[in-house]
Amino acid sequence: MKIIIIGASGTIGKHVAGSLEKEHEIIRVGSKSGDIQADITSPASIENLFRQTGSFDALISTAGDAYFGPFKTMTDKEFSIGINSKLMGQINLVLIGQHHINPKGSFTLISGVLTEFPVLSGANASAANGAVEAFVRAAAIELDNGVRINAVSPTVVEESPAYFPYFPGHIPATMKQVVYAYHKSVLGAGTGQVIKVY
Amino acid sequence: MKIIIIGASGTIGKHVAGSLEKEHEIIRVGSKSGDIQADITSPASIENLFRQTGSFDALISTAGDAYFGPFKTMTDKEFSIGINSKLMGQINLVLIGQHHINPKGSFTLISGVLTEFPVLSGANASAANGAVEAFVRAAAIELDNGVRINAVSPTVVEESPAYFPYFPGHIPATMKQVVYAYHKSVLGAGTGQVIKVY
Repeated sequence: MKIIIIGASGTIGKHVAGSLEKEHEIIRVGSKSGDIQADITSPASIENLFRQTGSFDALISTAGDAYFGPFKTMTDKEFSIGINSKLMGQINLVLIGQHHINPKGSFTLISGVLTEFPVLSGANASAANGAVEAFVRAAAIELDNGVRINAVSPTVVEESPAYFPYFPGHIPATMKQVVYAYHKSVLGAGTGQVIKVY
Repeated sequence: MKIIIIGASGTIGKHVAGSLEKEHEIIRVGSKSGDIQADITSPASIENLFRQTGSFDALISTAGDAYFGPFKTMTDKEFSIGINSKLMGQINLVLIGQHHINPKGSFTLISGVLTEFPVLSGANASAANGAVEAFVRAAAIELDNGVRINAVSPTVVEESPAYFPYFPGHIPATMKQVVYAYHKSVLGAGTGQVIKVY
């Protein structure tokens, strides 16, 4: 398969890419690194990405920023970070990518545990995640030609100890668990699923 | 209580307002009608709203637009309708309203059945609803002074038969059921809850 990985140099993305590169053609995409650079907050940049990749079999997103900070002082402007990146960035990858994906292809987005179990300072990420998960369920019933879509929803990962204090009591997911969740989406047959890694 | 109702002239809003007006002071807000006009897609308009209302005990939102149309041709621009209105419009009511609400007050937003059970053409509404529900869970753990927040999530309502064809097999909620869900949020003690009316 020809697999596009968005956020391929990130903590999760590099492991997902590494796990698939022996058996598949991987196109690594990053905001500043990888085979192709793209800014997912810009629909024009996403259009340009697919013009360069041509048609593909799977798109994996491990990318998307959100704002973390106290709710008490949170503003519309800060909130827009997650709206424009983790939420609309990933959704635009699908709205635009649906016109470039091969039949029986798949989209796999990233959400996260904060949809269901919020943490302090995480309201922006919670909202973005909740939108992505509901979007995946909705898109799955309309995508044509056997194209599938799922979300992987990890908790904090073992490789990111800096985040542990923000996730009290969350048992960190191992990278193997997260990578397997992406495999379940890309190599499996499910659609409209939120694959929880927590 | 002093209760602000956003969307007070809408199908749901007018019934919620009517059910509470005997025992509470109701401030009806609409985009073009009501005691005060406000455009929830504009943070400046929301700021202006609270300058006019002063402090309040409960804010009820029964408002928020979303785009309905086929996924195959859906664009970023169409998708932004639900993002700016049902999603960020309602979230900004809380981000800004938290500085004007009285201790032990409550926010009640509206989501909908499409979070969990999508219908054709409804991806934008699904995403907005999913964001609102996750946001409510997250905001609930950070709001100070005993302020609560919930979402009411109705399916299609009996009073809107024009929508029935888009919701095959959904048993329409009665207006009484929807009004009671708002009462559960505003007059009850729960927080971080999605009150499903389906």
